[in-house]
Amino acid sequence: MRLQPLSLCSHRLALALALAAPFALMPTTSLHAAPAAAARQGDTAPVLVTAAQWQQMASEGSRYPWFAKEQARTEKSLQKMMKAGIDVPVPKDKGGGRTHEQHKRNYQALLAAGTLYRLTGDKAYVTYSRDMLLQYAKLYPTLGPHPEGRGQIPGRVFWQVLNDSVWLVNAIQGYDAIRDALSPQDRQTIESQVFRPMAEFLASEPKNYDQIHNHATWAVAATGMTGYVLRDPELVEKSLRGSRKDDQFGFLRQIDLLFSPDGYYEEGPYYQRYALAPFLLFANAIERNEPQRKIFARRDGVLLKAVDVLVQTSYDGLFFPINDAILDKGIDTEELVAGIGIAYAQAGDDRLLSVAQQQKRLLLSPEGLQVAQALAANKAKPFDYRPMLLRDGPDGERGGLAILRMGGERGQALVQKDTMQGMGHGHFDKLNWLFYDNGNAVVTDYGAARFLNVEAKRGGIYLAENRSWAKQTVAHNTLVVNEQSHFKGDWKRGEEHAPQVRFFQADADTQIASATMRDAYPGVVFTRTQALLRHPELGLPVVLDLLQVHGDKTARYDLPLHFNGHIVTTGFEAEHFPTQRPVLGSDNGYQHLWLDARSKAGSEPRTLAWLLDGRFYTYRFGSSAPSQALLVESGANDPEFNLRREPALLQRVEGQKDVTFFSVLEPHGEYNGTAEYVHGADSRIKQIVRTRGSDAEVLELRLASGARIALGVADDSNAESEHSVTVDGHAYRWSGSHARMDRSKGDAR
Amino acid sequence: MRLQPLSLCSHRLALALALAAPFALMPTTSLHAAPAAAARQGDTAPVLVTAAQWQQMASEGSRYPWFAKEQARTEKSLQKMMKAGIDVPVPKDKGGGRTHEQHKRNYQALLAAGTLYRLTGDKAYVTYSRDMLLQYAKLYPTLGPHPEGRGQIPGRVFWQVLNDSVWLVNAIQGYDAIRDALSPQDRQTIESQVFRPMAEFLASEPKNYDQIHNHATWAVAATGMTGYVLRDPELVEKSLRGSRKDDQFGFLRQIDLLFSPDGYYEEGPYYQRYALAPFLLFANAIERNEPQRKIFARRDGVLLKAVDVLVQTSYDGLFFPINDAILDKGIDTEELVAGIGIAYAQAGDDRLLSVAQQQKRLLLSPEGLQVAQALAANKAKPFDYRPMLLRDGPDGERGGLAILRMGGERGQALVQKDTMQGMGHGHFDKLNWLFYDNGNAVVTDYGAARFLNVEAKRGGIYLAENRSWAKQTVAHNTLVVNEQSHFKGDWKRGEEHAPQVRFFQADADTQIASATMRDAYPGVVFTRTQALLRHPELGLPVVLDLLQVHGDKTARYDLPLHFNGHIVTTGFEAEHFPTQRPVLGSDNGYQHLWLDARSKAGSEPRTLAWLLDGRFYTYRFGSSAPSQALLVESGANDPEFNLRREPALLQRVEGQKDVTFFSVLEPHGEYNGTAEYVHGADSRIKQIVRTRGSDAEVLELRLASGARIALGVADDSNAESEHSVTVDGHAYRWSGSHARMDRSKGDAR
Repeated sequence: MRLQPLSLCSHRLALALALAAPFALMPTTSLHAAPAAAARQGDTAPVLVTAAQWQQMASEGSRYPWFAKEQARTEKSLQKMMKAGIDVPVPKDKGGGRTHEQHKRNYQALLAAGTLYRLTGDKAYVTYSRDMLLQYAKLYPTLGPHPEGRGQIPGRVFWQVLNDSVWLVNAIQGYDAIRDALSPQDRQTIESQVFRPMAEFLASEPKNYDQIHNHATWAVAATGMTGYVLRDPELVEKSLRGSRKDDQFGFLRQIDLLFSPDGYYEEGPYYQRYALAPFLLFANAIERNEPQRKIFARRDGVLLKAVDVLVQTSYDGLFFPINDAILDKGIDTEELVAGIGIAYAQAGDDRLLSVAQQQKRLLLSPEGLQVAQALAANKAKPFDYRPMLLRDGPDGERGGLAILRMGGERGQALVQKDTMQGMGHGHFDKLNWLFYDNGNAVVTDYGAARFLNVEAKRGGIYLAENRSWAKQTVAHNTLVVNEQSHFKGDWKRGEEHAPQVRFFQADADTQIASATMRDAYPGVVFTRTQALLRHPELGLPVVLDLLQVHGDKTARYDLPLHFNGHIVTTGFEAEHFPTQRPVLGSDNGYQHLWLDARSKAGSEPRTLAWLLDGRFYTYRFGSSAPSQALLVESGANDPEFNLRREPALLQRVEGQKDVTFFSVLEPHGEYNGTAEYVHGADSRIKQIVRTRGSDAEVLELRLASGARIALGVADDSNAESEHSVTVDGHAYRWSGSHARMDRSKGDAR
Repeated sequence: MRLQPLSLCSHRLALALALAAPFALMPTTSLHAAPAAAARQGDTAPVLVTAAQWQQMASEGSRYPWFAKEQARTEKSLQKMMKAGIDVPVPKDKGGGRTHEQHKRNYQALLAAGTLYRLTGDKAYVTYSRDMLLQYAKLYPTLGPHPEGRGQIPGRVFWQVLNDSVWLVNAIQGYDAIRDALSPQDRQTIESQVFRPMAEFLASEPKNYDQIHNHATWAVAATGMTGYVLRDPELVEKSLRGSRKDDQFGFLRQIDLLFSPDGYYEEGPYYQRYALAPFLLFANAIERNEPQRKIFARRDGVLLKAVDVLVQTSYDGLFFPINDAILDKGIDTEELVAGIGIAYAQAGDDRLLSVAQQQKRLLLSPEGLQVAQALAANKAKPFDYRPMLLRDGPDGERGGLAILRMGGERGQALVQKDTMQGMGHGHFDKLNWLFYDNGNAVVTDYGAARFLNVEAKRGGIYLAENRSWAKQTVAHNTLVVNEQSHFKGDWKRGEEHAPQVRFFQADADTQIASATMRDAYPGVVFTRTQALLRHPELGLPVVLDLLQVHGDKTARYDLPLHFNGHIVTTGFEAEHFPTQRPVLGSDNGYQHLWLDARSKAGSEPRTLAWLLDGRFYTYRFGSSAPSQALLVESGANDPEFNLRREPALLQRVEGQKDVTFFSVLEPHGEYNGTAEYVHGADSRIKQIVRTRGSDAEVLELRLASGARIALGVADDSNAESEHSVTVDGHAYRWSGSHARMDRSKGDAR
């Protein structure tokens, strides 16, 4: 629910003010473009949104229901907080604790009060902000490192310096809006005791400030925006170019290195969302004050591409939870509310308006007004979720995120994670995959082991289990060699090696992605090719998966599949452990898996079927060498109950150098407990057959109807030469990296 | 989703025709009351809905959107089935299998075709029905017991005779509507080869027919309605009075014995829902043909009360899943669509219309038309979910179901199960409780171990785990003595003993229910008193629970609490079993519990807190004698993965004769992962103190604010005498069974 009183809100309002881009002129609007604010000392006019823009919002906003509703909601929330009285406590608590949450509410209140003062002219908001800031002016100079200080650089107001940066990004916007309504003496007190020392503190620590990392983006955004408001060009310069002003670090360098040319952020959508806020806020402040920098045009408009990417990397409103991610974060996040506003103001793409509708929010900013105007004119069109390869790396040559999609927003989506490591928040899951169908995650990613802001769970930070489980390879759906994680779990080593994308194709009925990974393990190369295939004799598209492994010595190869649902049929004989449940292993995540069942080693493909939200999923899997099938569940070695308990299937091949794993995942049928019917409970696939040729292989699906679906995949993705693989006397021939070569019942004999 | 094509539907349309009650005249309608159909041999006019009523629906239905939509939906579904062609297969499969589902679809089609013939006049529907029935006429006489036959009396068309009854209930309605459009020869063939032998088969087996059980209600409804249509008064008489026509069994006796005077059905809501269909359908047929029986007035209108009870025994649209119940069954079930129609036609209570709106369906019947008319006139008012005690037993003296409620449909609901055994579908859970809050089940009931109609799960019947786990006492939230289930798991013994309700009170701020159980265990008496309490210094109402046990010899007492959510804080020291997970016990459900943690025995109250759907729940629990706290999870000894894995807390007291368990469950705070805030994560209760006086005890909640909530409960619920219990120097005095005696901060010192 979005109708929270402000006192319950996070930094939802964080972006309300800063999004005033004077270039953002749309045909339907008449926002006055204002000249860049003069950086004269002593000038007190607002610089993040111009006085004229405020004036226009104040006079026109009420005519547009979305804008008026947002303003009413903000007023109601702030009134409640003003009634409760000002509270600026001495910092004491960890994330989620009382003083932590109060200081969060305070920056939200400062932002809301500045906004509402401009929209209503009511001086009570100025008084409230001033009084609160004067209390901060008394408190702040007395603060040393936070008593619960965390990491190398503790914060002052909060335990993490990151939160201090966020405080400043928000508060400075509110302050900008009321600055010209304060007495010179109050201004002097507040700036010399709060904003200037805060900015100086943030900029003083290279380990915080001079980094290519989203925490540093929050820091430079905070100091840069403060620089504009305080008319301090030196502070702005440091923010843009690094504390040494040598362009090694700073905001511009961050834009260049943190996004790929396609607008993908290497940490993944969860952090892309978080990083987007300071990028957009500060970029807007720059555009406003130094339009000659053309900040939004930098790198072919990468900041705006990043907004689109963030929507594309979601399913049914929630971000793909790759790397450290909280599962319930999605496109209604306030950072993307800002993003949609800015992107719409720039591009005028009416499909973004349907995202705004899902967000049910907008900003009290010039862009928010434009969105409100366009929604009032019924311009919204559906957002276009489509298959795509998002290249990773500053030059787009460090792997990528492959998204295969059929059936739109709640249809089928396959995500193949061929991206870079993703820095310290990256997981060790090269060539991992996720699959969505019917509005649900079916092949899952655990996300992060973290209860955000829940004090009882270690103050809401990443739990120990994030490292011991969530980041480990076995917690993902990709190859594990000898029970070790990729790069031995060292993310800095991981940063050195990226997958190589072999090919990507996305047609209506055949979508396919392929990548190769080297150096995740010494001497091991593995290639994964996955396809989403539609066929008239299948009810829904199915996923083919081909994972080819080559090692230079014999090893144990494990391939986990973390699935979501209740097991309906275990299509293989297995030893069960019904009365003493052993733990699968001792380290690298294996210590968190209970073993429920284990088959003998065998070479015939097996099946596992499960039921999720009224739909059946049959997984049919085999391998080129004999494998065991293990059924496991997370939750072992978890005395604090920090983990969710989730099932997985693990295929295990022992003592081989090379192995190929192959499978098909088939969604089918319907179970309706309310209306008491079941249909399509049986798989329509009879068999999966993998056949190796000299330089290629073919996966053949034999359907119950008699038809066959065949996918040929060549070892060399670049070759134009012809390949031929003979399956039961039928020669499949094709040129190039891959081909789909179905046969109807008649063809197949 | 409700917009299923017919071929996917269950018997959703089952009730479409039969609900024509000529007495059901509402001011807004002008249905013609028709005289009772003459039971003349050779008369072929429809008798379940009169020709005149059909005529009115045909001419007026299209004016009312809900009716027109329902008709269009039915047409679309049936057209699809007609296009696919008639398929009357030789019975072969279990529930969920192909032939099973096809015969289900066939009776739905027969019903839909009859209805649509009357509403449209299109003879194609008659041809389709006739051709299908002629195929049944060829098949039926060849059938013996079903090859997968189940139970003492296998069906003919289906594996269970119950399904044969359902087939006939539906098909006879469709046949009634087309009967006068058939040639005499076709009528003769169909009646002599299908309907008459089917009815005779059903009535021929006293183990099926002469029972006080819902299966027998389906059987008598089938034969009784067939009797009216075939003009066979003898068959009707048997249906009403039992096969021996001595009133020992039959429909009338079922009405008298299966419902309590409050309209509660002893098996619980899930089966009440299922039983309601044949009761209402046959009652309607009786009213139509023999209005002088005043069937709906029988026992003060108990059949209509049963409709209201069914809605009251739901939370957020789903039935309380006590006894054998599928969790996803709720008020949108088609049986209740019929129920709401009939009840509305009878009582004209506009609050029922809001239930109809939630159902999103209505019937193509005279009552359905009335509902459509009332909805078109915007008459719907909210349904009134309220606290109530539903007495159980034919005379209302065999316990009852206590429902405490605050905050409406998605607020707090506490269900105390003080009912009778519930026959063969009853669970061994005397004085069990369930708790709902915030739209979720918080203290849960497992329901039935069954995947309805999923063939891979034993044909969709009750699994072995239904007996070994779901029915057992330890799978519930009530007292277990020496690891045995109540009545040693013998439901027939359970039928002999019911709880005794001590008192029930439901005010705005204090709601309380109390009951005593004897004879669940020899020599053991236990009394449970539970209260739902609102207090201005608590964010939400809390649940107090007092369970007093008296035994005649020392025993092990276990009290499980099955909770829903992720553990946030385990407020006690415990030994953990992180690497080898033992099973808690060997039988009576204990063999299905993994043991995760076990505390030492102690006397101080402990806490356990969990998080569910953004809300925190703190459970504070203690006992009069030292107890251990065990954390367990279901799923042990489950090699087929038939069980859901769910956590529970178990309090264990060893070697005592008497013990009192006491606790408070407090919902509080909010966790919002999307907006990244947490508030109210700390409990507002500091302490729970239980003090024993000479003839009563007091539970005192000491709030963080300083206030105290006190509840006094006397041993003797009837006494008017004064009780006094002194807690820390303060004497609480009251008269009668119980009293709430809060003290403000000042009072409490």
